[in-house]
Amino acid sequence: MCELFGLSARHPTDVNHSLALLRPRGGEMGPHADGWGVAFYEGNAARVFKEPIPAAESRCLAFISEYDFKSTTVIAHIRRANPPQIGRAAANTHPFERELGGRSWVFAHNGKLPGLRDDPRFEPRRFQPMGETDSEYAFCLLLEKVDVRSTCGSLVDAIRGITRQLADVGEFNFMLSDGEHLVVHAHTKLYAAQRYCVEAGCDQKAILLATAPLTDERWRPLDHGHIYVYAGGDELLHTRCGKRGVGRAQLAEGVGH
Amino acid sequence: MCELFGLSARHPTDVNHSLALLRPRGGEMGPHADGWGVAFYEGNAARVFKEPIPAAESRCLAFISEYDFKSTTVIAHIRRANPPQIGRAAANTHPFERELGGRSWVFAHNGKLPGLRDDPRFEPRRFQPMGETDSEYAFCLLLEKVDVRSTCGSLVDAIRGITRQLADVGEFNFMLSDGEHLVVHAHTKLYAAQRYCVEAGCDQKAILLATAPLTDERWRPLDHGHIYVYAGGDELLHTRCGKRGVGRAQLAEGVGH
Repeated sequence: MCELFGLSARHPTDVNHSLALLRPRGGEMGPHADGWGVAFYEGNAARVFKEPIPAAESRCLAFISEYDFKSTTVIAHIRRANPPQIGRAAANTHPFERELGGRSWVFAHNGKLPGLRDDPRFEPRRFQPMGETDSEYAFCLLLEKVDVRSTCGSLVDAIRGITRQLADVGEFNFMLSDGEHLVVHAHTKLYAAQRYCVEAGCDQKAILLATAPLTDERWRPLDHGHIYVYAGGDELLHTRCGKRGVGRAQLAEGVGH
Repeated sequence: MCELFGLSARHPTDVNHSLALLRPRGGEMGPHADGWGVAFYEGNAARVFKEPIPAAESRCLAFISEYDFKSTTVIAHIRRANPPQIGRAAANTHPFERELGGRSWVFAHNGKLPGLRDDPRFEPRRFQPMGETDSEYAFCLLLEKVDVRSTCGSLVDAIRGITRQLADVGEFNFMLSDGEHLVVHAHTKLYAAQRYCVEAGCDQKAILLATAPLTDERWRPLDHGHIYVYAGGDELLHTRCGKRGVGRAQLAEGVGH
């Protein structure tokens, strides 16, 4: 399985500490040894760094973890290929990125969507996958539903149906962003921690999200099967998406992530 | 103005030496102090690194120059914002990237295309710019002409008309790649150097391209106004694109790169 990490903050902040905590989970402490990726937004454009090697061994990720990239919106992912025949390759490494409406859209997935690519109900058109993962395939399907004029609420309405359909195929925890909104689907597991600045005159606030608590702060489990939308460190909305519980995927062998 | 660098090689190779030579031109030896970017292809996907700060000051570029990224297709760019009001921002930093037909397409530009964004003849539709440069705007226009089923020759046929039209607007030296082909337009300046492996049993060959010779090897000036296509270290074709010479741009103030 994979680890997801996300940040939504009022003011740009670095995520050095979180990346340093995430890094050993890729191949040292954890089994997520097939790649890592981080997307930092700068306005409507994302800078995406990724590498199809174990995060724990990556000098590049170590460098980035100390480089003081500051952003209000970050998505990171540590990958274990599953099944192993979906190999280590840049094209198979999260987060994935596409431009839509003059913005970078970034997506990372935790879970498996077995059989998705062979299912005739699901056929991406405008956006095509570059790699072999179900995750990127699902991203292409999601993005085709997004109307670039969407407000926060209508963005969720646009993706709610396809999110539910894909969750029925397997396990579909994801993080999606256009740089302004951080949309997460807590299908089976996602945790959130809220941080406020305690110094006088500082109005920074941030929400950290992860598939497993990263620190000994209070990490609140998100409601399973719900979509949450964050922006500027605030939770904008929170809505039931589909059925609780996992589809047939958790038992089956998928070609996800 | 900006500096462009490109590589097409038969086997993956690093470009550490070329990046090390290019790096001081961004803000130390040269005036190209507003950003840098490098795209390394891995199959049909590109890994794009860029930063809106002077290349010569970038610890990140210094790190990449020593990281031994190996690729058969590389595009690099050192940027000076011109005019300065098109500011330092990730969205304004080359190379630009879009997915089309399940491949990463990468583009970098040298020159100015004044008035392009206000010209009603040129209106990107499917691909929208994220930043404010004429360069990214021109990339969106180019890509809309590309048929994903294009062969090498028909790819050039597809972009020849729009390349000529854009060259008429100003100065339009560019590098464009889908990971397999490296397409360059030598509107007013581009140089090529061919390298062969001299060791026994080594069949590596590579073509290096740059807006100014990087080394004391023999750098052949490409024919002005011509489009060249390279793949696997070979020149596949070379064809006259438009009129020789520069459009009205070289004298006018553009909002390019």
